[in-house]
Amino acid sequence: MGRNAIVGQSGGPTSVINASLAGVLQACQKRGCEHIYGMRHGIQGLLEGKYIDLGETCGSTLEIELLKRTPSSYLGSCRYKLPTYIENPEVYAKLFEILDKLDIGYFFYIGGNDSMDTIMKLSDYAKAINSPIRFMGVPKTIDNDLMGTDHTPGYGSAAKYVATVMKELCRDAAVYGTKYVTIVEIMGRNAGWLTAAAALARGEDCEGVDLICLPEVPFHLDRFIQKIEALQKDHPSIVIAVSEGIKTPDGRYVAELANDNLAVDSFGHKSLSGTARFLCQYVQEHLQTKTRAIELSTLQRCAAHITSRTDITEAYQVGGAAAVAAFDGKTGMMASLKRVSNDPYQCVTELVDVHQCANHEKKIPMEWINNYRNGMTNEFLEYARPLIQAELTPIYIEGLPRHIYIKD
Amino acid sequence: MGRNAIVGQSGGPTSVINASLAGVLQACQKRGCEHIYGMRHGIQGLLEGKYIDLGETCGSTLEIELLKRTPSSYLGSCRYKLPTYIENPEVYAKLFEILDKLDIGYFFYIGGNDSMDTIMKLSDYAKAINSPIRFMGVPKTIDNDLMGTDHTPGYGSAAKYVATVMKELCRDAAVYGTKYVTIVEIMGRNAGWLTAAAALARGEDCEGVDLICLPEVPFHLDRFIQKIEALQKDHPSIVIAVSEGIKTPDGRYVAELANDNLAVDSFGHKSLSGTARFLCQYVQEHLQTKTRAIELSTLQRCAAHITSRTDITEAYQVGGAAAVAAFDGKTGMMASLKRVSNDPYQCVTELVDVHQCANHEKKIPMEWINNYRNGMTNEFLEYARPLIQAELTPIYIEGLPRHIYIKD
Repeated sequence: MGRNAIVGQSGGPTSVINASLAGVLQACQKRGCEHIYGMRHGIQGLLEGKYIDLGETCGSTLEIELLKRTPSSYLGSCRYKLPTYIENPEVYAKLFEILDKLDIGYFFYIGGNDSMDTIMKLSDYAKAINSPIRFMGVPKTIDNDLMGTDHTPGYGSAAKYVATVMKELCRDAAVYGTKYVTIVEIMGRNAGWLTAAAALARGEDCEGVDLICLPEVPFHLDRFIQKIEALQKDHPSIVIAVSEGIKTPDGRYVAELANDNLAVDSFGHKSLSGTARFLCQYVQEHLQTKTRAIELSTLQRCAAHITSRTDITEAYQVGGAAAVAAFDGKTGMMASLKRVSNDPYQCVTELVDVHQCANHEKKIPMEWINNYRNGMTNEFLEYARPLIQAELTPIYIEGLPRHIYIKD
Repeated sequence: MGRNAIVGQSGGPTSVINASLAGVLQACQKRGCEHIYGMRHGIQGLLEGKYIDLGETCGSTLEIELLKRTPSSYLGSCRYKLPTYIENPEVYAKLFEILDKLDIGYFFYIGGNDSMDTIMKLSDYAKAINSPIRFMGVPKTIDNDLMGTDHTPGYGSAAKYVATVMKELCRDAAVYGTKYVTIVEIMGRNAGWLTAAAALARGEDCEGVDLICLPEVPFHLDRFIQKIEALQKDHPSIVIAVSEGIKTPDGRYVAELANDNLAVDSFGHKSLSGTARFLCQYVQEHLQTKTRAIELSTLQRCAAHITSRTDITEAYQVGGAAAVAAFDGKTGMMASLKRVSNDPYQCVTELVDVHQCANHEKKIPMEWINNYRNGMTNEFLEYARPLIQAELTPIYIEGLPRHIYIKD
């Protein structure tokens, strides 16, 4: 049984993925691991022999606190789809050779759907060859679309950022008192969780957004125009949150209406952007109003200067829970979050079989979307609001939030 | 001599323009003004008889603290160019009739170049007709392009936002370790002050941005491509800050290369956007690299969740200084900021003749731009760094920054 641990980060970064890294690291340290290695750029980097010893780069408690406040993946990430054993047995042989050389007993992978697929394949393979190495998944994604967990670490902070920015944009958009349509494009390919967070902006001190367009709901251009026209009879400044992944009833991305040749990544995902820009142009062609397209783009997944403390804490907890479970002999599991109650908000970690989460996507339940299909119900607000509570103040040095990074 | 005061906000909003409003309001209250009115949507709204009594809507110290943390113009804004007296004497007659009816002795206008033009015209007119009303300007603009002041309130907070976001984007962009060119488009039509603030990102914990493209420097597409190609031989992830206002050597906006028909506002300013998008497309046509275009757009002028306390304090001070000066009998002046020393940073308010500031634009001195014309010198950093220091924590209620607004 290997004495050391290794941890990697994969997929799109979040503001809190490093808090999960801190959780894995500290739990392994406390359980007496001599070396806790970090894969550089996930499993892809590891296959090229790239790794570091985390005890050497993040050893102090100050470094751990900086890690919790540093956006993006400290170790670097990859978008690498692990082939099946049948497709490519050599990759498995090579990987396990590296793990044996490093005397690894515990393997952690922090990521989303695709990363859980990696953990599933590796733990299945380990069982088949009777390897004692334990493979555990740690969830992360701003998209909140992972099965097997009440919500994903990363979502709460991104949702807090979205809601905060929508409040600020509501103030800015109303400033001239003239007809204005602000369309804000938010990440979410097939699940609208992050776009839905725009609903949190409404409150005693904010009118809130007027329309929320989710990928779960077919998007009708004509109804969109009619709705804006009707809304502007009541108030001139209309603020709209649209998911990058909205589709027309015939299944085409709205982003494709603007650009027929969207780029495609290594997972076959189309690069979606330009949805808000296209819609603004369309609105201007049909209505007498100014428009403004805003893409939250990468900003929404790396805004570590405004995170949810609840989210940071839970990200740390699932990292720690995965490590504890691995030391208890578990493998092929994901440490997940189970909500005990909404009010008062209580949430604990549990373990789920990674086969239940890999390659599935969790969408917003239709009963959490209002009857007009253009806003959220109270059930959604009760679900989401606890996740954005409390703050982890950045460590400001000379006026800017301090980070920690690996100098190559 | 009128006993009341009136204050308006004009032009593009900032995160701290309401701190100046708080400064005017509290200074006038302390000097015994019975009513301090707020113009709704600047002078344009006032001409339509739209105003409120600020003592009724912002009377408490809690409301003042919320005001300091609320982005955009609390009173609403306008983009109204006051005609000259020769062009339109009726406007002047109407305006002074309204001021007399409200028993106004003190008139304050918080804004940028165009607002100082309004104060200049009104104070000149008042002198000509022997009106005792005192007209004072209070500077604001994220662009920092006002003459007669060391820097403008609003710039420090926007600069802090830009530098923070650039640090976060540097982390995010490096995550895959692959060739990536991130081009971030920052506001600044003719002066690059805000784009230059991207230089503040570099430090012990950040590689910083690789190139800074300012409107003060003619932009060569071919050199831009050559430079990126050379930089990527050293490191794969390149982060670039470009001003929306960069122009080719023949004087065309780069934004116009993407779109021949840019919209024009009431001041004849072309609506610039799409610069980063155009450049990313151009880079992809010429180099083997992924690209990503990010527009900070409206976010950079309303990100009240991350402000500079130095900036908030100074915004409040110039508001107060303008009020005190008006009570001292001054008119036709702008309360401005005078730097006494860089280190330790010391800055005081002074008064300047509004004729010196109206309709002029302050650009970055060429000696603050490096010899390659693609980055900033230490002189700039020494100038800018004090302005982003310290924070004013938002008042978080249920996880979101609390604002204050006028319900219409």
